[in-house]
Amino acid sequence: MIVRDYCQTYRVNTETNKTAADQPTPRSRLHRLPERGSYEVASALAIVEQVGHGTVAYQGDQGLRILPTLLWCDPETVYIHGSSASRAIRDLADGRECCLNAYTLDGVVVARSAQHMSVNYQSATLFGVMEVVPEDRKTPELAALVNRMTPGRWDEIRKPSPAEDKSVTVLQLAITDCSVKVRTGPPVDDEADYDLPIWAGVVPMSRMAGTPIADPRLSNDQPAPRSLDEIHFG
Amino acid sequence: MIVRDYCQTYRVNTETNKTAADQPTPRSRLHRLPERGSYEVASALAIVEQVGHGTVAYQGDQGLRILPTLLWCDPETVYIHGSSASRAIRDLADGRECCLNAYTLDGVVVARSAQHMSVNYQSATLFGVMEVVPEDRKTPELAALVNRMTPGRWDEIRKPSPAEDKSVTVLQLAITDCSVKVRTGPPVDDEADYDLPIWAGVVPMSRMAGTPIADPRLSNDQPAPRSLDEIHFG
Repeated sequence: MIVRDYCQTYRVNTETNKTAADQPTPRSRLHRLPERGSYEVASALAIVEQVGHGTVAYQGDQGLRILPTLLWCDPETVYIHGSSASRAIRDLADGRECCLNAYTLDGVVVARSAQHMSVNYQSATLFGVMEVVPEDRKTPELAALVNRMTPGRWDEIRKPSPAEDKSVTVLQLAITDCSVKVRTGPPVDDEADYDLPIWAGVVPMSRMAGTPIADPRLSNDQPAPRSLDEIHFG
Repeated sequence: MIVRDYCQTYRVNTETNKTAADQPTPRSRLHRLPERGSYEVASALAIVEQVGHGTVAYQGDQGLRILPTLLWCDPETVYIHGSSASRAIRDLADGRECCLNAYTLDGVVVARSAQHMSVNYQSATLFGVMEVVPEDRKTPELAALVNRMTPGRWDEIRKPSPAEDKSVTVLQLAITDCSVKVRTGPPVDDEADYDLPIWAGVVPMSRMAGTPIADPRLSNDQPAPRSLDEIHFG
């Protein structure tokens, strides 16, 4: 089984460890509430890995496009996949500029005034170009995707045939810069409003996995594998 | 209290009711699995309203950008808001092309082979340009946003002062075209794989609101308002 201890890898990130991609650029620099932000690739990837899905924007031949997609990471970068025949995958594979975002919605910030209603979130935006993952790394990356979706699942399923392998393209983002923005904590109301007789606080939000629903065509009464209990998306 | 019965409005959409924006265009046409898609604005807006947040992509002065943001709808279009001083809001307000997406993640499709692992989702992408909502419609739209976040909240909070109102810009999307893509149901495995002794099915996913956490600065022991029970995001 392929296991990556993402959180541990990503959270070990120190000020002394910065690379060029960790620096703000004119496009990644946060202008609004910059105290809520950072520019560290490791922090951005930690959010992307925690969420497990997001959107990729790029300039298509017919205009601006946005692609919602599953995402998975290693300590260096983020990956997407798709049919080798997909227009989006072919467009992105040609090295055009793209911009990838993943975010959590951690809570609704219920303030005393309309002005300070907000949400708690973690958002990561990464800039760069996509590169095609070479053939010899494709199967391990598809295994990483399957295990990101359903931890341990790769060991349970029928593996891809050569034709199936060929039908899928895996892309990795060559990251040039990124930005991270996070809001946590209670509302921040105007000082005069704290005395108002209005309830305020945070309603936490989280994405939950429910009880597995067996395929009606399941060949016998086998129970759902324990690994399904570990499914988690942001 | 401002109430909009979004779902009812949006779901009443018939084949005979199509407008120009309901037709596929070169950029909105779905090439992969088009049987999972549609091009109806009402269907797209119903998904956006159900999710309540998403991303807007646009070409910034320093390159492609992607903005995660709260979204709310009326039967005609989708709205975003932000600080009037925000670079993103100012860029979008100048009428440049943009592309907006919202999606749900309804379940993990646990198939018998890697090839057919998937997710159930509803995704809406809308194309167009943003227009500034005029001053006389701004307060009602901010009320609609507050009530989308926390149903009924507008009646409970301190209303915006003229200065606060001015500090916020509301934008509405002038929709030119859109696409919707939806996957539901159990895995679709290769016929030969159904006999394999491998569990398959769907793990439903949903975003849940937790127990409200009172602001530590709450002025008295008042209970959380009942309206918080109705918070829902996709």
